[in-house]
Amino acid sequence: MTDPAMLIAEMGRSARTAATSLAGLPTARKADGLRAAAAALRAKAPAIADANAQDMAAATERGLSGALLDRLRLDEGRIAAMAAGVEAVAGLADPVGQVIDRTTRPNGLELSRVRVPIGVIGIIYESRPNVTADAAALCVMAGNAAILRGGSEAVHSNAATHAALAQGFAAAGLPADAVQLVPTTDRAAVGAMLAADGVIDLVVPRGGKSLVARVQAEARVPVLAHLDGINHVYVDASADPAMARRIVLDAKLRRTGICGAMETLLIDRGFADAGALIVALRDAGCEVRGDDHAAALVPGLAIADAADWDTEYLDAIASVAMVDGVEQAIAHIAAHGSHHTDAIVADDPAVAERFLTAVDSAIVLWNASTQFADGGEFGLGAEIGIATGRLHARGPVALEGLTTYKWIGRGTGQVRG
Amino acid sequence: MTDPAMLIAEMGRSARTAATSLAGLPTARKADGLRAAAAALRAKAPAIADANAQDMAAATERGLSGALLDRLRLDEGRIAAMAAGVEAVAGLADPVGQVIDRTTRPNGLELSRVRVPIGVIGIIYESRPNVTADAAALCVMAGNAAILRGGSEAVHSNAATHAALAQGFAAAGLPADAVQLVPTTDRAAVGAMLAADGVIDLVVPRGGKSLVARVQAEARVPVLAHLDGINHVYVDASADPAMARRIVLDAKLRRTGICGAMETLLIDRGFADAGALIVALRDAGCEVRGDDHAAALVPGLAIADAADWDTEYLDAIASVAMVDGVEQAIAHIAAHGSHHTDAIVADDPAVAERFLTAVDSAIVLWNASTQFADGGEFGLGAEIGIATGRLHARGPVALEGLTTYKWIGRGTGQVRG
Repeated sequence: MTDPAMLIAEMGRSARTAATSLAGLPTARKADGLRAAAAALRAKAPAIADANAQDMAAATERGLSGALLDRLRLDEGRIAAMAAGVEAVAGLADPVGQVIDRTTRPNGLELSRVRVPIGVIGIIYESRPNVTADAAALCVMAGNAAILRGGSEAVHSNAATHAALAQGFAAAGLPADAVQLVPTTDRAAVGAMLAADGVIDLVVPRGGKSLVARVQAEARVPVLAHLDGINHVYVDASADPAMARRIVLDAKLRRTGICGAMETLLIDRGFADAGALIVALRDAGCEVRGDDHAAALVPGLAIADAADWDTEYLDAIASVAMVDGVEQAIAHIAAHGSHHTDAIVADDPAVAERFLTAVDSAIVLWNASTQFADGGEFGLGAEIGIATGRLHARGPVALEGLTTYKWIGRGTGQVRG
Repeated sequence: MTDPAMLIAEMGRSARTAATSLAGLPTARKADGLRAAAAALRAKAPAIADANAQDMAAATERGLSGALLDRLRLDEGRIAAMAAGVEAVAGLADPVGQVIDRTTRPNGLELSRVRVPIGVIGIIYESRPNVTADAAALCVMAGNAAILRGGSEAVHSNAATHAALAQGFAAAGLPADAVQLVPTTDRAAVGAMLAADGVIDLVVPRGGKSLVARVQAEARVPVLAHLDGINHVYVDASADPAMARRIVLDAKLRRTGICGAMETLLIDRGFADAGALIVALRDAGCEVRGDDHAAALVPGLAIADAADWDTEYLDAIASVAMVDGVEQAIAHIAAHGSHHTDAIVADDPAVAERFLTAVDSAIVLWNASTQFADGGEFGLGAEIGIATGRLHARGPVALEGLTTYKWIGRGTGQVRG
C-alpha cells in the first residue's frame, strides 16, 4: 500500500490546486455545485442506505454502544436531512469577499479587511457519516478544499456519501479534488495529516476523547479543537418549575449521543421543586447519580462518585449536584466543565446575567436547552462542529469560521518617510 | 534555581487569577492602569536608558549585527514613543463586551456573539525591549493577563521596563500579576511555557527563525505565528517611475531591520525605468543582487543565487528579479514569499486588483510602501506583531486579535423537542 505521508502529500497538492481555483469562484458557482451535490445525495440515497446498513451490521456485531450506533445510523430521513443541509449551506451568505471593516488613514491610505478562504482543511472524524456531507458543503462554500478522513466504522457510508458528492460537484463543474476522501482506514494516514504542515492549513477533529487527544498531542498543523461537552444546566431558586423540568428533560434526553446534551444538573438548594425535578428525570428513563444533598431529597438515588462530575456520558445518565446559588454553580462549572455549552434556568435577570458573564463557555444560555448547541439551530447552516478552544472560532463553526481575512491597502504613492 | 515547569505553573496560576479579575474590569479602569504605566515609563526613562546601555554594551561586545543593535536600542526618543504607545492603547476602543452580531431565531431565542478576553497570553520575544511595554498594554487593555519572556540580550532593558509598568499598574489598582516577566533567561523556561497547555491560552513568539521554529516544533499551546517577512514590491509596466522609486527606496531602506521591509524587488520587463530604479536603490546605499535580466540592465550588478529569493536580509541588501507581468510576479511571490506583506506599484487598476486578490499574504498594498505593515500605522495602536499564519488573526495583531468571543443565548423556555 501507498506510504501514508506520500498519499497525504499527493492529496494535498491536488487540494491546493483545487483551493486556488475555489478561492476565485463566484458564489453562484459554489452554490450550484452544492445543489448538484444535494441532488446526487438524494438520487443515491438507496446506495448510501445500503452502505450504511453494512456499517451498522458490523458495528452491532462489534458491540458498539447505543449512543455510537445512533451516531452511525443513516436512515432515509437522515440522508434527506443531509441533502437538505447541503442545500441550506448553498443558500447561506458567502463570507468570501466580505469586507469586515474599512478605514482611511490620515495619510490617505485606504485599508480594508476582506474575508478569504483558509485554503486546505483536513477533517478527521469518527462515527457520524453525515459529517462527510456537512464538512464538504461548508468547506467548498467557504472556498476551501477539503481532505476528509472518516472513521473505519463508517467506511462504507462515507465512501458512498463522498461518491455522491463528487458526482454532484463534477456535474456542476467544480474542481474534481475540491473534496477528497482519504482512501484508507490506516491510522497512519491520520498521523500524516497531522504532520502536513504547509500542506493542510487547518485540521478539524471530530470525535471522542482519544481522537482529540491524539490530534492535540501530534498535530504540527493548526487545530480547531472540538473537545467533549460536559454541559451543565443550573436551575436557580428563581426558576419556573415547569420550565426547568421541560428544559432539563430536553437537554438530557432529546438526544443523548450529541455533544450538546446535558451531563450534569446543578440545582440551587433554594429551588423548591428539586426533588420533583430529579424524580421527573429518572421517570423519563434517565439514570441519575446525585450528590449527598440530592440523595437526601430522593430516597434510593444512586450516589455520584468523583469521576461523575467530569464524565461525558453520551447516554441516558446524568449527575446531579445541589449548589448554594449561582456563584457555586459558576465555580462547579469552572472546575468540571469543558467550555462547551452551559445553561441557566432562572426568572431573576440579575442572576441570569451574572451566569452568562461569568461562565467561560463557548455557548451560555438562559432559559433554553443545551441541545440548541448546533450550527443549524444557530442559523449558520450545517456545522463542522462546536469549537471548545478559545481561538479563531468558538462554538458552532460554519462558513465564517472556515475563512480568514487579508488586509488590502490602496494608496496613491504613500511612504513612511 | 527553580524548576522552570514549576515556575511557569506558579506564574500561570497567578496570571489566571489576574485574568479573571481583568476580564470583569470596566474599560476606564484598564485605561487608567495603562496611563499610570505610561507615566511610570516616563518617570523611569533614565533608569530604563541606563539598563539599555548595559544591554547595548554587551551586545556590541558580542558582535551583534547593525540590524540587531538597532532593534535592541532604547534611546530617549524610543522610550517616549513606548510610553506614548501605551497611552495610545489606553485610548483605543475596548473590544471586550462588544457585540459582534445579534440575531433572533424563529423560535424566539435571542443569540449574540460577544467579545471576551482570551485569558492568559504568553509572549516570547527577542531583541526588541519595546515589546515589553507594547505587549503588556495590549494584553491588559484586552482583559488578558500576560506572561512575558524576553531575550537574554535585552534582560536589563526588559526588567527596567517591566518594573516601571508594574509600578504604574499597582498605582492604578490593577491586579499585581496582570503582567509578569519570567525572571530567568534559562531557555528551559521557554519550553515550559510552550508545554503549559491549559495554563497559557496563547503563545505569541516574536523573533527570528530559530525561535519561531522552536516554538512551532514544541508548542502544545496555541501559537499566533509571526514568521519572517520576505516581502516583495512588484513594479508594473504601468507604474509611475517617480512613485516606484519613492516606494521602493522607502520599502527597503527606511528601516532595514523591521519585518515590513522589502527584501525582493520584482520589476516588470515592460517597465521602462528598470535600470534607473536598480541604480537608484544601489546609489541609496543598498547592496543589490539581481537575476541575469537585471544584471543585463545594470553593468556590474551582483548576481543573486537561489538562496537570495528566500532570504530575509533585515539589512541594506535587496534581491531584484525581472518578471513578465503581474502573473509572473504573483507566481514568484507564491513560491518565495512568507505571506507577510507584498506591494504592487501600478497605474493600471485592473492589474493592481488582480495582484491584491491573487497574492495570498496577510497584507497586500497598492501604491504604498511595505513599511506600513505596522499596527500603529493601521490605526490599531501598538501591535503584538504581524501574524503570518492564517487563523484567528492575520497581519497586525492588536486588541481585537487578543480577544475571542462567546455565544450568549437568551430564551423564554425554548427546547428542541
